[in-house]
Amino acid sequence: MGFSHINQSGEANMVDVSSKPVTAREARAQGYVIMQPETLQHIIDGKHHKGDVFSVARIAGIQAAKKCSDLIPLCHPLMLSKVQVDFDIDKTNNQVKITSLCKLAGQTGVEMEALTAVSVAALTLFDMCKALDPGMIISDIQVLEKQGGKHGHWRS
Amino acid sequence: MGFSHINQSGEANMVDVSSKPVTAREARAQGYVIMQPETLQHIIDGKHHKGDVFSVARIAGIQAAKKCSDLIPLCHPLMLSKVQVDFDIDKTNNQVKITSLCKLAGQTGVEMEALTAVSVAALTLFDMCKALDPGMIISDIQVLEKQGGKHGHWRS
Amino acid sequence: MGFSHINQSGEANMVDVSSKPVTAREARAQGYVIMQPETLQHIIDGKHHKGDVFSVARIAGIQAAKKCSDLIPLCHPLMLSKVQVDFDIDKTNNQVKITSLCKLAGQTGVEMEALTAVSVAALTLFDMCKALDPGMIISDIQVLEKQGGKHGHWRS
Amino acid sequence: MGFSHINQSGEANMVDVSSKPVTAREARAQGYVIMQPETLQHIIDGKHHKGDVFSVARIAGIQAAKKCSDLIPLCHPLMLSKVQVDFDIDKTNNQVKITSLCKLAGQTGVEMEALTAVSVAALTLFDMCKALDPGMIISDIQVLEKQGGKHGHWRS
Amino acid sequence: MGFSHINQSGEANMVDVSSKPVTAREARAQGYVIMQPETLQHIIDGKHHKGDVFSVARIAGIQAAKKCSDLIPLCHPLMLSKVQVDFDIDKTNNQVKITSLCKLAGQTGVEMEALTAVSVAALTLFDMCKALDPGMIISDIQVLEKQGGKHGHWRS
Amino acid sequence: MGFSHINQSGEANMVDVSSKPVTAREARAQGYVIMQPETLQHIIDGKHHKGDVFSVARIAGIQAAKKCSDLIPLCHPLMLSKVQVDFDIDKTNNQVKITSLCKLAGQTGVEMEALTAVSVAALTLFDMCKALDPGMIISDIQVLEKQGGKHGHWRS
Repeated sequence: MGFSHINQSGEANMVDVSSKPVTAREARAQGYVIMQPETLQHIIDGKHHKGDVFSVARIAGIQAAKKCSDLIPLCHPLMLSKVQVDFDIDKTNNQVKITSLCKLAGQTGVEMEALTAVSVAALTLFDMCKALDPGMIISDIQVLEKQGGKHGHWRS
Repeated sequence: MGFSHINQSGEANMVDVSSKPVTAREARAQGYVIMQPETLQHIIDGKHHKGDVFSVARIAGIQAAKKCSDLIPLCHPLMLSKVQVDFDIDKTNNQVKITSLCKLAGQTGVEMEALTAVSVAALTLFDMCKALDPGMIISDIQVLEKQGGKHGHWRS
Repeated sequence: MGFSHINQSGEANMVDVSSKPVTAREARAQGYVIMQPETLQHIIDGKHHKGDVFSVARIAGIQAAKKCSDLIPLCHPLMLSKVQVDFDIDKTNNQVKITSLCKLAGQTGVEMEALTAVSVAALTLFDMCKALDPGMIISDIQVLEKQGGKHGHWRS
Repeated sequence: MGFSHINQSGEANMVDVSSKPVTAREARAQGYVIMQPETLQHIIDGKHHKGDVFSVARIAGIQAAKKCSDLIPLCHPLMLSKVQVDFDIDKTNNQVKITSLCKLAGQTGVEMEALTAVSVAALTLFDMCKALDPGMIISDIQVLEKQGGKHGHWRS
Repeated sequence: MGFSHINQSGEANMVDVSSKPVTAREARAQGYVIMQPETLQHIIDGKHHKGDVFSVARIAGIQAAKKCSDLIPLCHPLMLSKVQVDFDIDKTNNQVKITSLCKLAGQTGVEMEALTAVSVAALTLFDMCKALDPGMIISDIQVLEKQGGKHGHWRS
Repeated sequence: MGFSHINQSGEANMVDVSSKPVTAREARAQGYVIMQPETLQHIIDGKHHKGDVFSVARIAGIQAAKKCSDLIPLCHPLMLSKVQVDFDIDKTNNQVKITSLCKLAGQTGVEMEALTAVSVAALTLFDMCKALDPGMIISDIQVLEKQGGKHGHWRS
């Protein structure tokens, strides 16, 4: 078994999904932004007011999921029926956990959309905190779970 | 000192850089895609033929750097004068290291563009290898170095 | 009843339409650009020649309807099967009336697409006339009618 | 004097600004979303919690200002140095007032960017409230003030 | 019979495909980039190493097919299920032949997507070779074959 | 001398133009759409009314020039100060000639923008005439002339 997008001659093309059945697809992904304790405290303080950096990062993640096939060259265009992005503050490890959920009825999985939502939400968080803390690290972006399609349920 | 994009009332807006001088800016970022040894071997084998997944991921990373202000809501539009994305295979740790370099003469730094290039190159690598290895992890995305602007040289 | 996109914790996310049936949807919207009599006369004169500002504004409105989910963060991506934009000159009130019609078979309504078509057509008209008349006003943008979905027919 | 974008033969083209000097430009625009008192009350209630529809609409407006030359066919691409979008609740008239400010150093004015920010922020507000109140009206979008360029200061 | 997109009053609008059945659609297109023998030799030499200009042009063509409805004003948005772009070197005529294949299940044909893939792949090839050979010519872009829809099979 | 975008290891990257001076740049390109005499006659007839397919194709060409760096992976983002697209009917050869002119003050040439404007205008013309004449050919797209930069004036 080889790479799905690369043919025998080593050429990259978009996989043909024309004959795949349309099924309900769902994927969840997660990632982390690790920062200084003071930076995390600033985020926490902002949440008590209206100045919630998470609402900006959430919108950016949702918008990015919709742009996935424009960003990742061999991804098929999809019509997502649901995108959700959530943030959890983990004070013990000085990090913000970002999780995403994407759904659609279609011919291909939505894990790339879920990963893209997490990645761009993380980049947006980085952007808003970078003046305080340019050394933040975006880490452990991975698929948690996916459903639908011929492989059924997959869990990391 | 607080978040640069959030004002006193907690509202997020694009920072005013109108009066900042135009200076030469440069930023380098890096990140990793950690995978199964067999997946990495497949990439290495592909490099010996023409089927180089890195060339697809490199193009995706370069294109994404140019779209940074469309992806990250409070980023200013910029006219990058140089984008470079490189890949190194690290067999010991079963990972691919991705590095990027962005340059421009402008009023704001280019670290978000460099981070975006690494992130989308990593997502593209993930996309092409996911049929073999859905459990890959994108990790340790960070700024390595930035130059230009009032803060001068910064190194992680 | 609350806002459909905001959950209990006050977080904005894209509504889940996965289980909604695919039905024929249709929406009509309208809006006005109010201007100086001389500006309107210029538009009328242009129509007698080939220089028809309406044809530029019509294309802009159609293109914008297709970009609706990229512009409005919580809109679902849709595949419009029909977009139409029309212009009527109202000399009595010194204004141009813009109407739009959008159609698709899908899981969500298309009134946002119809409103976006009207708004961007109005902005384009403004752009082409602004050297003559910078004080124009874009006004009374609203949904006229929508059909399809569980709420059936709605008329303003 | 005729339309700036239409030549003698009636053909629409992008105006040549090559020989215009680069000057500091600034524009402010405003618009309204008129709604039922109950809808406005829902927005006000949301502001007391974290679920602030204005933060979503603000991001949409800022992002749209950056896309102005992609939306309006004869607009020049610009590099905005500042975009700000604000919302004021006007309980007396059951409406939300949206104001925007755009700045750059460039060869053309930024009033179209300011108007686009207001328009798309209004559409986004409409989108989030439409389940409650499909009869809202977006109204009185206009330029308030512009500065820079050969015409100097203009005020509506 | 007249132009499908232009109505009786001469106004261009997106054709209504709402009532067309969803069928399997397929289109193939081709085009050529004609160049100096030395330029073609450079491309051939690059293929022996990893520096394959075709892989960049292939990705550009695939990405452009997905953007077709954003580029061509009256095209409907589509969800392509397959895009393929191929290159053949024709040393006798000092040219590169580019062919594309697009597929989907939908209400409209995909020949514009196939032509767009060829055109943008050709432009990208031009871009990478233009420092050596600014006089190249992109030529004979045409539809080779299309299937699906009420007209059935068409061959040039 | 080799390909400007491909380094010694055969990797494609965006060329560094950081140290190039900003100069006035200009490029003109042309191309043809060859069609059946009846198709051309339909276009001519439309010009006598308001239904001018050229105005749609002109807008598409102008918009595409602005998107050039998004379409062609290794193109730098530019801020065009002028784009013009013109159409000439050549009844003798049953073809429409498309010419474009792009201008800016910048660090790289604008011939790719001029070629992209011609290509997408041609594709748009094709789209609007294809129901009548699916066998049209887009041909002889080339740069006519370019000025500015270290190579000065170049003419095909």
